[in-house]
Amino acid sequence: MLRPKSVAVIGASEVKNKIGNVIVTNLKDYGFKGKIYPINKKADEIKEIDGLKVYASVKDVPDDIDLAIISIPAPAVLEAVEECGEKGVKAIDVISSGFGEVGNKEEEEKLVQVAKKYGMRLLGPNTFGVYYAGNSMNATFGPKDVIPGKVAFISQSGALGIALMGWTILQQIGMSAIVSTGNKAEIDDADLMEWLAEDQNTNAILLYIEGVKDGQKFMKVARSVVPKKPVVVIKAGRSQRGAQAAASHTGSLAGSDSVFDAAMKQVGVLRASDFGEAFDWVKALSQSPTLKTQESIIVTNGGGVGVLATDACEFNHIPLIVPPEDMKQEFMKYMPSFGSPKNPVDLTGGANEKQYYDALGVAFNDERIGSVIVLYCQTAVTDPVIIAKQIARAYEESGRNKPMVTSFVGGKECDDAMKWLTRAGIPSYSTPEQAVKALAAVYAWNGYKEKLEARK
Amino acid sequence: MLRPKSVAVIGASEVKNKIGNVIVTNLKDYGFKGKIYPINKKADEIKEIDGLKVYASVKDVPDDIDLAIISIPAPAVLEAVEECGEKGVKAIDVISSGFGEVGNKEEEEKLVQVAKKYGMRLLGPNTFGVYYAGNSMNATFGPKDVIPGKVAFISQSGALGIALMGWTILQQIGMSAIVSTGNKAEIDDADLMEWLAEDQNTNAILLYIEGVKDGQKFMKVARSVVPKKPVVVIKAGRSQRGAQAAASHTGSLAGSDSVFDAAMKQVGVLRASDFGEAFDWVKALSQSPTLKTQESIIVTNGGGVGVLATDACEFNHIPLIVPPEDMKQEFMKYMPSFGSPKNPVDLTGGANEKQYYDALGVAFNDERIGSVIVLYCQTAVTDPVIIAKQIARAYEESGRNKPMVTSFVGGKECDDAMKWLTRAGIPSYSTPEQAVKALAAVYAWNGYKEKLEARK
Repeated sequence: MLRPKSVAVIGASEVKNKIGNVIVTNLKDYGFKGKIYPINKKADEIKEIDGLKVYASVKDVPDDIDLAIISIPAPAVLEAVEECGEKGVKAIDVISSGFGEVGNKEEEEKLVQVAKKYGMRLLGPNTFGVYYAGNSMNATFGPKDVIPGKVAFISQSGALGIALMGWTILQQIGMSAIVSTGNKAEIDDADLMEWLAEDQNTNAILLYIEGVKDGQKFMKVARSVVPKKPVVVIKAGRSQRGAQAAASHTGSLAGSDSVFDAAMKQVGVLRASDFGEAFDWVKALSQSPTLKTQESIIVTNGGGVGVLATDACEFNHIPLIVPPEDMKQEFMKYMPSFGSPKNPVDLTGGANEKQYYDALGVAFNDERIGSVIVLYCQTAVTDPVIIAKQIARAYEESGRNKPMVTSFVGGKECDDAMKWLTRAGIPSYSTPEQAVKALAAVYAWNGYKEKLEARK
Repeated sequence: MLRPKSVAVIGASEVKNKIGNVIVTNLKDYGFKGKIYPINKKADEIKEIDGLKVYASVKDVPDDIDLAIISIPAPAVLEAVEECGEKGVKAIDVISSGFGEVGNKEEEEKLVQVAKKYGMRLLGPNTFGVYYAGNSMNATFGPKDVIPGKVAFISQSGALGIALMGWTILQQIGMSAIVSTGNKAEIDDADLMEWLAEDQNTNAILLYIEGVKDGQKFMKVARSVVPKKPVVVIKAGRSQRGAQAAASHTGSLAGSDSVFDAAMKQVGVLRASDFGEAFDWVKALSQSPTLKTQESIIVTNGGGVGVLATDACEFNHIPLIVPPEDMKQEFMKYMPSFGSPKNPVDLTGGANEKQYYDALGVAFNDERIGSVIVLYCQTAVTDPVIIAKQIARAYEESGRNKPMVTSFVGGKECDDAMKWLTRAGIPSYSTPEQAVKALAAVYAWNGYKEKLEARK
């Protein structure tokens, strides 16, 4: 499904902005490392789309087809699936809607039966396509310019999924895979999670779900995935009214929220309260090395932000180290006399990039320190981008040997610095509390992982 | 202090990027509607700064001076204050540091005594200046381009305050006043709150505090201010470790957090957990009309975001209306047959600006609806900016008669739409949960106001 060498787009269109056209151009423009075969019954008239030869049927394609994306009216889908089977297609993603979600369960079941007959996997129906960074495949009708990275996103809601593709670009979060499960007629979240757990390109998995069809399967798979990779879930329909709304949206039975919550805790899946928080978390989870020891240190140029982060650490159960004398001495080398070598380590407002670089060298190299929270409060005398670069340099030189989160508080220059850090694979947040909460997610996952591994 | 007709900058400098230079140029470039008098002992040599004649002493200025900003080394401040007194200056803001915050309480007390002798009010020492939108006065050494608006911000931390000035620009939050209280030798948060409660330009007050010196005074003032204007407080040093860090940062005694929390609840001050949340809240609080009835309605083009907002409403105690038959009939006029007139009102993914405009007309004009949550989930077929404009139009035409919050989920186009809405004075947030939480702050304040008014 995610690593095809060739993709057929059934229902490819030459009309700009039509789904069948956007998928072909997205595939091409994003630089798909495989072959693209547009399929349209009117192949005789259309001839080519975006320079690619059009075929009337998958069966006319002179080559093997690994994945077929189907975007044609619902009544015509069954025949197309049958043809894919005859052709020997391995996997199908049905974008077309008009099946189970509108009560047409019978036709949906027929698609599954035909797929099974030919040994094909079936995603959907009612999806927005698939994105996979590993082979530069953007076979979606979402935005073109997804940033490749290490986070996999599985969305039950197609509309929200498409909107969140745009959001990841805005937030500069690099994605390894984006899949909408739609009606989950055959492939479901658990199947995808299982596959992504083994995927070298994916470091963290984010799920948006409104309901789970097979709870036992989900639990079993999650239990096996979490020791390998962190899983964050946004579960909509958590409240009574929300569950009703979810039922009328995707026909999902949300079930009791407290039961779901307990189940997730048992298998070590992290629950975020909204997608802002969820993406904050996966940004850190997908970039953080293993936590070797618990106690954290805050390095800052401002007292105020240091206090805010200290508060957040206590509320989010991140223990802060009390620096022993020798550690204090080391930090004091890189601050003026009115700085503070206690935790928060306050380099003071005048701290320049060299002082950050040197102080962080101490923090990264001291094995008593488990993780590092780096804060910068904008001043008139220092340039946040220059400081960001030296923070990154110190981190790289240490071999990225412990989790680090950063927060730059200020105006446009700070925003630029954070964008730079995010691109360099360093999780960065616009408030100290967001940074600490994301680090807390890293702690939580490491805790679950150890517990689950110990149980084996 | 905030409405001077003339300002003297004592320690004005001709050297770019020096505090004494930045204050003069900020005042001038921001278009201060009054007179600016740079003061520097070397007036003979310097002659003018940025085209303004320099005087050697305030006493040489041929005009009255309402406010003097002092930015000279600590040992010289006392004499300057004395001269201000002789000149008949009405208020003084001492930017210079090196007083109580470094243990030099004696000298600080002397400043207060001299100010009192002459009947002058004294802000600071150890501040970053003052900003007031009403007379276009940016007498700070922070960023030049603060956006004028309705939110007043009082910060105990100077460094964080300056950084957050930049943050408000980035977030496009309009400010009425920005003041750092510094060491609070004479004027404190309570004094400023009292003044801002009567200020026509201010709709909401945001406080960053690490500690309160006179708790009883603060409580008394807050109790009188809250029925007039919402007050949001970020209290740093809430945790045990955080309180220690705060003590070493500004020498504040943070006191017990639970006691503080109970006290704030008693007087109706809203506590935010971090400044991201605090600014989210004041954005809505400063723009919202009075809540007349409780039940809210969600209008959306996407089921997923609708479910997320429904969850958030329940968790944040915002009751959702169950639309009666007649209301449903009204909404159904503006959606396709597969839309939903229940709450969330789902206009479906194809909803255009006209459908939003019409459906919102129903929501604004129906007196059974107390507040409106408008959501937009990005689609390929509609333009978020065009939809934003019609949302604003419907709101204006209704006379802004009930609180409304909005959230546009998606990529850059949604971000542009939200920036547009924010500039139009409509609170807008990048996640439905943020929007709902901000609306919950509006509900909380209205609740406190009613309670406090009833008690009278």
